[in-house]
Amino acid sequence: MGRVADVPKKVDHQERREEIARALWRVVEHQGLAGATMREVSREANASLGQVQHYFSSRTEMLAFAMEYAAEQTAQRVSLAVGEVAHPRDVVRVTLVEMLPLHPDSRAASRMSAAYMVEALHDPELQERLRAGLRDGRDVLEHLLRQAIADGHLPPSRDPAVEANLLVALTGFTPLLELGVLEPAAALAAIDEHLDRMFVQSECCPVRPFPAGNR
Amino acid sequence: MGRVADVPKKVDHQERREEIARALWRVVEHQGLAGATMREVSREANASLGQVQHYFSSRTEMLAFAMEYAAEQTAQRVSLAVGEVAHPRDVVRVTLVEMLPLHPDSRAASRMSAAYMVEALHDPELQERLRAGLRDGRDVLEHLLRQAIADGHLPPSRDPAVEANLLVALTGFTPLLELGVLEPAAALAAIDEHLDRMFVQSECCPVRPFPAGNR
Repeated sequence: MGRVADVPKKVDHQERREEIARALWRVVEHQGLAGATMREVSREANASLGQVQHYFSSRTEMLAFAMEYAAEQTAQRVSLAVGEVAHPRDVVRVTLVEMLPLHPDSRAASRMSAAYMVEALHDPELQERLRAGLRDGRDVLEHLLRQAIADGHLPPSRDPAVEANLLVALTGFTPLLELGVLEPAAALAAIDEHLDRMFVQSECCPVRPFPAGNR
Repeated sequence: MGRVADVPKKVDHQERREEIARALWRVVEHQGLAGATMREVSREANASLGQVQHYFSSRTEMLAFAMEYAAEQTAQRVSLAVGEVAHPRDVVRVTLVEMLPLHPDSRAASRMSAAYMVEALHDPELQERLRAGLRDGRDVLEHLLRQAIADGHLPPSRDPAVEANLLVALTGFTPLLELGVLEPAAALAAIDEHLDRMFVQSECCPVRPFPAGNR
């Protein structure tokens, strides 16, 4: 086949894989990860088992793709929401909010992560994949905070590694939201309090003066 | 049977249930919650299936007991660790640390919680049980913080509900620790930074003065 014919075929291939991934999200949301067999996902996707097997050689490959696709979609939602907003506080807030189960798409991704996490405790390959994803997300936040300090948006007394760790840890709102112990508004209020305290530039008594060379 | 004979029998009964619960923790730790069938737990506990069924009428009852026993053990570890320490900052720190997978017992409890959480998304009864446990834990923290404000250990500008929510959310360190993205020391450093910032009594510019009637 020529190159001209290959392009639309590749696009279809990717689109079809994404459709299957979304079907998998729905199965995980309603039945848990254990229910996400290739057979069940093909039923949800209105496809035959053979078709799903054409796009994914194994359940593991299908799960990995669905997880990575969820991460990409989250990243995309973050970029869209951030838009032209330049202040790192808004970027951090949007990132945190998109990691929490506050709307159907982020809830699907969050439930998949939780289910993967539990499964990964007994599966070294899955563990490595999850570790890499979580570490990358954390490192992106740390880089952003380091830049925020350099740009004077965050007090220079803040340790960007510690702040990034605290932000990622706040995804611990997930079980509180999933179980209805907290309403979304209460989680958001707590996140705002954390960000206020983190970004505060005390007017009367800075913890540490700006070094002259940095201004 | 007389009452004298009943007492040791009841003690044995409770002890035996706790042994089975600990066997269940080990099964969950190594195989996940799905692996924790009555048969597998009886094998781990060196008991017959019939013996386990004598102590628990169903798998659900066994799981519920194991979860509640884990929560009790966590509470007991907290009381032991807190001991005579009176400052609420230490109480809060010990509570947080005991909720994280930093040693074998708390790791077993933490893994059980995570597995239960994933299962609970598709099981309303389990969901209600988990919700009650999490809400109670959160409410205990809020009460403690309210008292800390009344005693002048926490700035009166703090909202005890918001602070309790942030503390519970910090159990989000769990996946970071489980996957080895963070070393325990880094999680503890971040927790200390959070507590420092939360408990800080600014000397130069209190956010809100203490009302005269409260001093």
